[in-house]
Amino acid sequence: MSVNAEVICVGTELLLGEIQNSNAQFLAQQLAQLGIPHFYQTVVGDNPERLKKVLAIAAERAQLLILTGGLGPTPDDLTTETLAEFFATPLVEHPEILADITHKFAQRNLALSANNRKQALLPQGAQILPNSTGTAPGMIWQPRTGLTLLTFPGVPAEMKLMWQETAVPYLRAQGWGQEIIYSRVLRFWGISESALAEKVAPFLAMQNPTVAPYANHGEARLRISVRSNSEVEAQQQIIPVEQQLRRLTGEDCYGTDDDSLASVVGQVLQSRGETLSVAESCTGGGLGQMVTQVAGSSSYFMGGIISYDDAVKLSLLDVAAEDLAQQGAVSHTVARQMAAGVRCRLKTTWGLSITGIAGPGGGTATKPVGLVYIGLAGPEVSTSFEYRFGSLRDREWIQRLSACSALDQLRRKLLLSVHKT
Amino acid sequence: MSVNAEVICVGTELLLGEIQNSNAQFLAQQLAQLGIPHFYQTVVGDNPERLKKVLAIAAERAQLLILTGGLGPTPDDLTTETLAEFFATPLVEHPEILADITHKFAQRNLALSANNRKQALLPQGAQILPNSTGTAPGMIWQPRTGLTLLTFPGVPAEMKLMWQETAVPYLRAQGWGQEIIYSRVLRFWGISESALAEKVAPFLAMQNPTVAPYANHGEARLRISVRSNSEVEAQQQIIPVEQQLRRLTGEDCYGTDDDSLASVVGQVLQSRGETLSVAESCTGGGLGQMVTQVAGSSSYFMGGIISYDDAVKLSLLDVAAEDLAQQGAVSHTVARQMAAGVRCRLKTTWGLSITGIAGPGGGTATKPVGLVYIGLAGPEVSTSFEYRFGSLRDREWIQRLSACSALDQLRRKLLLSVHKT
Repeated sequence: MSVNAEVICVGTELLLGEIQNSNAQFLAQQLAQLGIPHFYQTVVGDNPERLKKVLAIAAERAQLLILTGGLGPTPDDLTTETLAEFFATPLVEHPEILADITHKFAQRNLALSANNRKQALLPQGAQILPNSTGTAPGMIWQPRTGLTLLTFPGVPAEMKLMWQETAVPYLRAQGWGQEIIYSRVLRFWGISESALAEKVAPFLAMQNPTVAPYANHGEARLRISVRSNSEVEAQQQIIPVEQQLRRLTGEDCYGTDDDSLASVVGQVLQSRGETLSVAESCTGGGLGQMVTQVAGSSSYFMGGIISYDDAVKLSLLDVAAEDLAQQGAVSHTVARQMAAGVRCRLKTTWGLSITGIAGPGGGTATKPVGLVYIGLAGPEVSTSFEYRFGSLRDREWIQRLSACSALDQLRRKLLLSVHKT
Repeated sequence: MSVNAEVICVGTELLLGEIQNSNAQFLAQQLAQLGIPHFYQTVVGDNPERLKKVLAIAAERAQLLILTGGLGPTPDDLTTETLAEFFATPLVEHPEILADITHKFAQRNLALSANNRKQALLPQGAQILPNSTGTAPGMIWQPRTGLTLLTFPGVPAEMKLMWQETAVPYLRAQGWGQEIIYSRVLRFWGISESALAEKVAPFLAMQNPTVAPYANHGEARLRISVRSNSEVEAQQQIIPVEQQLRRLTGEDCYGTDDDSLASVVGQVLQSRGETLSVAESCTGGGLGQMVTQVAGSSSYFMGGIISYDDAVKLSLLDVAAEDLAQQGAVSHTVARQMAAGVRCRLKTTWGLSITGIAGPGGGTATKPVGLVYIGLAGPEVSTSFEYRFGSLRDREWIQRLSACSALDQLRRKLLLSVHKT
């Protein structure tokens, strides 16, 4: 049998934006992993009338309702009462819940308040969904044939533990999650989401696996998702699609899933026993930071020089004073000399440099904000690249794009020299 | 006139749990600040039929619908078309949008794809809600009397900027918000959330303004919030509370609202005409990056040396070889020599250094992962500080805490020397 689930998060604090709704994302991931589709999520405040309206809608379009929040001891926690009322079912007190709460309070040297007593009430016919860490239990309840409710407290740590300990085994036992959704993300640099979508257009209409393009943190991605009964089978369905997509998109695809530009570049450097140093102007250290976010980067990254002020470009990177004066710090020439300078000073295989105008000030008509040069020096290599990231992007964004683009240029150069040998 | 708003987030990636729904929290906060109540939030996938069902429900219970997501160029981005279809309104092409998209693509040296063309379509009668950073514009549309729709792309950075630039002035002009929630955040470094809460305990029971402690990105904060009809009145209520809190908490409070440790340090350096350089080992450039995230940092930040490998500590920072051998790179002595070395090489007022073990590898019994030394050199100052961030924190977290702690030590030193003069 197949069911649709729906997630309902109850809490006025969510509607005031006081907390991030991390429960919704967790439940979404979990349902996808169990292969139980869900099509809607709703957030509603601690208000019985509005919650009833939400229940009326959700009970029509789903067979499994998952509710979080509103199980606490305070007067505004009304989820259980409201559910009982909506399904016209009386509440009954569960002595075993009361005993558990009393025991937990005693352990913390706290006195039980009258408010806590109401946490022992559940609608007639509901089973307890135990809460091993907090006081508020949830429930598993079938108020009518073909409709199952699960309730959880809103505290994420309690909810997640209860989900894993009780809900997952229960849902598996129902046989509702047969097909599992398995996915792989291909990651791209140097191509826009729309250009990528056009390049792989025929794949976007596929049904199983599906291929969907999206953008995240300035990079384009393709998600290959497959519904399958087993991980092995899913892999077998994904691999040929991945291979075809890679063939179509070439070297714009830099990796999959948890890869980053820095980790991919790092793997190649490590495998070849080569080393890297950086010379940074407008990124102020952001490129080095990106490289050293990768654990183990000390085996190929020697360090760098942050030449934010031009004096440092002269004294530590050996940029020629006349080129700096004539071409300006933001130029092909200076980018190349910075890369060569740091490579020489730090005695590395590769030197990678960035010089540009991150803004918001400092731009001119000929050298606008967002103009960035990347320099690359290596064995028989001295080259540079111009980027125009546009003055509408903010400083942090331009700095990030610059660092990623520098790593991408090194990546492409490393790929080329692999192909050559 | 008073209206109720409703938030609808469109995106299959939300239902798969691939991304956190940060837009919903942002919009909730913003609506609360504008004094516009909202009672429901819904998440639905990129599916026209289901989105129509959501619209039918929402249009009955709210007068202002705020939609995010589904405005991109790819075939699964269907929000605009679906809205037009739901309200039986034809789409019309806006040449000014097309011109804007074409211009933005040209700036990035990208070719416009056929897919992008559909982003220029809006329902007849809708106004453009301009997107200054991305390609997808939103809209402000009244499909019928008493119902207003605002649409935004799902990319949080674009959505937030559009909200601030266009939606807020529009909503204010409608006079829909009555009481406004106005708040100020005090930011702290060097004190835990629980210790802070204890220190200001009597304030936490206040009613208007309210004072609430919370933790975010590793720092403790206090939010002072007041409900008021005018910003001036709100300010008058907040100021005395802020003053009392600052008196209670002393120099642990480094700033308010949009301040960062780097911006606060930068302001002092700039006002005193002093300069800074950095020497980084385990942060790999992260301290320099933090300093240069502040616009205008070029007036006091000269640059730095990333001495990831010990050879660079010797050659460019003049660390003594025997100290490096005897004390190890992660030591008080080397931290001080790094700070002094970069200060001398870059001829700055202050030199700030970091050396430590970011993990996950590289720890020993005496020098565990998370052990970090900060060095500070300045006029008649040569000092260092030991931190133990604990091996349970991950690499990125230890790197971030290290950079923040370095800035915090410089900040405290600058405050001291202000007090002295």
